[in-house]
Amino acid sequence: MLPISTLSISNPEYQLRLKKLQEHLTTQSLTGVILTNRDYLLYYTGFAFIPTERPIAFVMNAAGETGMFVPRLELEHAQSRAVVQRVDHYLEYPSTPHPMQIFRTRLNEMGIFAGNYTADHDGYPWIFGYRGPTFTDLAGQPPRSIIAFIEDQMMIKSPAEIALIKESIKWANLAHTLLQRYTRPGLTETEVTQRASHEATHAMLDALGPLYRAQSYFSHGAEAGYRGQIGRNAAIPHALAANLTFQPGDVLVTGANATMWGYFSELERTMIIGKATDAQKFLFDHMLALQELAIHTLRPGLPCAEVDRTLRAYYEKHDLMPHWKHHVGHAIGLRYHEGPFLDHGDETIIQPGMVFTIEPGLYATPSTSQLRSGHGGYRHSDTVLITETGAEVLTYYPRDLESLTIPV
Amino acid sequence: MLPISTLSISNPEYQLRLKKLQEHLTTQSLTGVILTNRDYLLYYTGFAFIPTERPIAFVMNAAGETGMFVPRLELEHAQSRAVVQRVDHYLEYPSTPHPMQIFRTRLNEMGIFAGNYTADHDGYPWIFGYRGPTFTDLAGQPPRSIIAFIEDQMMIKSPAEIALIKESIKWANLAHTLLQRYTRPGLTETEVTQRASHEATHAMLDALGPLYRAQSYFSHGAEAGYRGQIGRNAAIPHALAANLTFQPGDVLVTGANATMWGYFSELERTMIIGKATDAQKFLFDHMLALQELAIHTLRPGLPCAEVDRTLRAYYEKHDLMPHWKHHVGHAIGLRYHEGPFLDHGDETIIQPGMVFTIEPGLYATPSTSQLRSGHGGYRHSDTVLITETGAEVLTYYPRDLESLTIPV
Repeated sequence: MLPISTLSISNPEYQLRLKKLQEHLTTQSLTGVILTNRDYLLYYTGFAFIPTERPIAFVMNAAGETGMFVPRLELEHAQSRAVVQRVDHYLEYPSTPHPMQIFRTRLNEMGIFAGNYTADHDGYPWIFGYRGPTFTDLAGQPPRSIIAFIEDQMMIKSPAEIALIKESIKWANLAHTLLQRYTRPGLTETEVTQRASHEATHAMLDALGPLYRAQSYFSHGAEAGYRGQIGRNAAIPHALAANLTFQPGDVLVTGANATMWGYFSELERTMIIGKATDAQKFLFDHMLALQELAIHTLRPGLPCAEVDRTLRAYYEKHDLMPHWKHHVGHAIGLRYHEGPFLDHGDETIIQPGMVFTIEPGLYATPSTSQLRSGHGGYRHSDTVLITETGAEVLTYYPRDLESLTIPV
Repeated sequence: MLPISTLSISNPEYQLRLKKLQEHLTTQSLTGVILTNRDYLLYYTGFAFIPTERPIAFVMNAAGETGMFVPRLELEHAQSRAVVQRVDHYLEYPSTPHPMQIFRTRLNEMGIFAGNYTADHDGYPWIFGYRGPTFTDLAGQPPRSIIAFIEDQMMIKSPAEIALIKESIKWANLAHTLLQRYTRPGLTETEVTQRASHEATHAMLDALGPLYRAQSYFSHGAEAGYRGQIGRNAAIPHALAANLTFQPGDVLVTGANATMWGYFSELERTMIIGKATDAQKFLFDHMLALQELAIHTLRPGLPCAEVDRTLRAYYEKHDLMPHWKHHVGHAIGLRYHEGPFLDHGDETIIQPGMVFTIEPGLYATPSTSQLRSGHGGYRHSDTVLITETGAEVLTYYPRDLESLTIPV
């Protein structure tokens, strides 16, 4: 075996994450932690799995001993994760005895139930009809919640995590470039979406070879598409695709992504087919100004809410609140939406290493009559890293109207 | 202007490189340094140019003042490099007065000729028939050579340099994947080389967009090809392409690359069209064993020569010296070959941050009669980073014969 380079999170980085979790246990005088959330397991161990009714859990005690608890069919997969010291398994769910009875033995051996313990959920969550005892049932006392600690830890991205997000961005950029190139009046969104996504995914797999793993249970390549945000439907932020045919005058809202070892980025663009009307140009220009204002506002030490308030002031000053629909953006990482949120209700302090999407939108429906000819959604989304002094835009797809105009 | 992320070497890193150069000047009691080599200018300033008969030079004095000296046509280009404090220019070469008379004034202002100074060459080098005074002529005393210091500095790659080499590798991997996929008996090397290189380059440009600059005066994309190392010609290590037609039984030696902000990587593979003969398999397997031996031998603290000696012992033990043609490999970075060399004549100590190609070869010509049916060249080249404890292979294209067999 040659010592091959890799793009993924290294085992020492997983060990560091676990060490911080252990420190939390000891400083809080907790006996141990039990995790069942797939994103948390991926974060601490690199183990990616598809959650089903068969319970899977990660456990660590205050001494730093780690274990996983999995069904037989996941045993070798879990054992391949070198960061976990021991893997226990049960045969099948529901089976007899119930998997949680076996797990309880292990939890007792590790001393988890000998005092105050913590977990992300009181028992394995209800998935596909799973039923079983809660940890309160097993321990005789409820777990403290570990969620706030983990979310705080996951908020700050390491250099390796940022590198994976940047890698994701390159392939999303390729997919989006192809999406724009192939979009022409008369074609349907489905054919263009599929062609761009397939070609981008093939190039990515050919380029990265064994460096690439999606580590995602729903995404496996580089993708760009429309999600139905075409013409009138573009005013509905999360519209579903409806295989519409592109027509001159359509306002399009796109989305592109590539899952990279579980990490996501976000790239969205507003494109217009043919020459923009004055109303379209008005909304596009304000959308661009809003996004730039948000990026220039971002800096460490500021509360997230302040960014939203600054933008809200712009909407109000320019009489744009009839076109407002949502906050400025959200953090992104192992989840394609995660906290904190750039929302006037989130007072989390912005810190270096946080990664946000910046995507203030303007939406015009036929009922907002003075802009009837501009109806559609106007939203770019860029992925932005908080640095020591401000922000750095990681996505680099063109933002200007001329570059985003589809010829007719 | 939004603060956009970049792949390139940052200005602070250029400043750090210059600072080390300045420290060398002060510790050696030198008045200043004059550089004319394009690779050294690229290394210290990020300024990439095509050397011609028009002199271009970089200068720094012991106080750390920096300047560039360029013809009028390069003025704005040079001024765009923020790391240089001042750009002086002359109108044209040869012109009157000679550019070097103007340059002398600037060198005197900066105090370079007031004492012992250093340069990479005594005057602007002879390029395209350039003629002019040497620095000895201008100063009344010859420069000390700065070359050993600069080469020692360039040997150790920074994390940003390693990231560019890794980025280069991804696109070379794509180009090579396409090269292998499109190679079939009956096609010519030119059509396959062009198709693979064009497609890989287009995907790279679409994916990286503004992140990408070649910063090379001869390479502008991702390339993979054969250089004529086909069949019998494969025994000639650096054969030129001759547009041969692929035939069953051919032994092919490939090369793939992508210049990334001036940085190179190296990926070469031996492929065989159809089922390998016993002689082909014999040579392929020994080549693979030699490469693996070299990679496992590499570690910080070892002299480069020791790697070559270790491999030479393998060649001798297995009676392979009739098939030996060259040393194990070379360093790579801003130049696609650079020192130190994994050669029994180079006693440079291997250090973390060095990047080498590992490419021991075996060559069989019709005159090496016992292996007549194996004639051809057998060489993989991988790009390998020296770590604190050993080596890490950055290239990840498959190495085994089965993966490298072209179907007939």
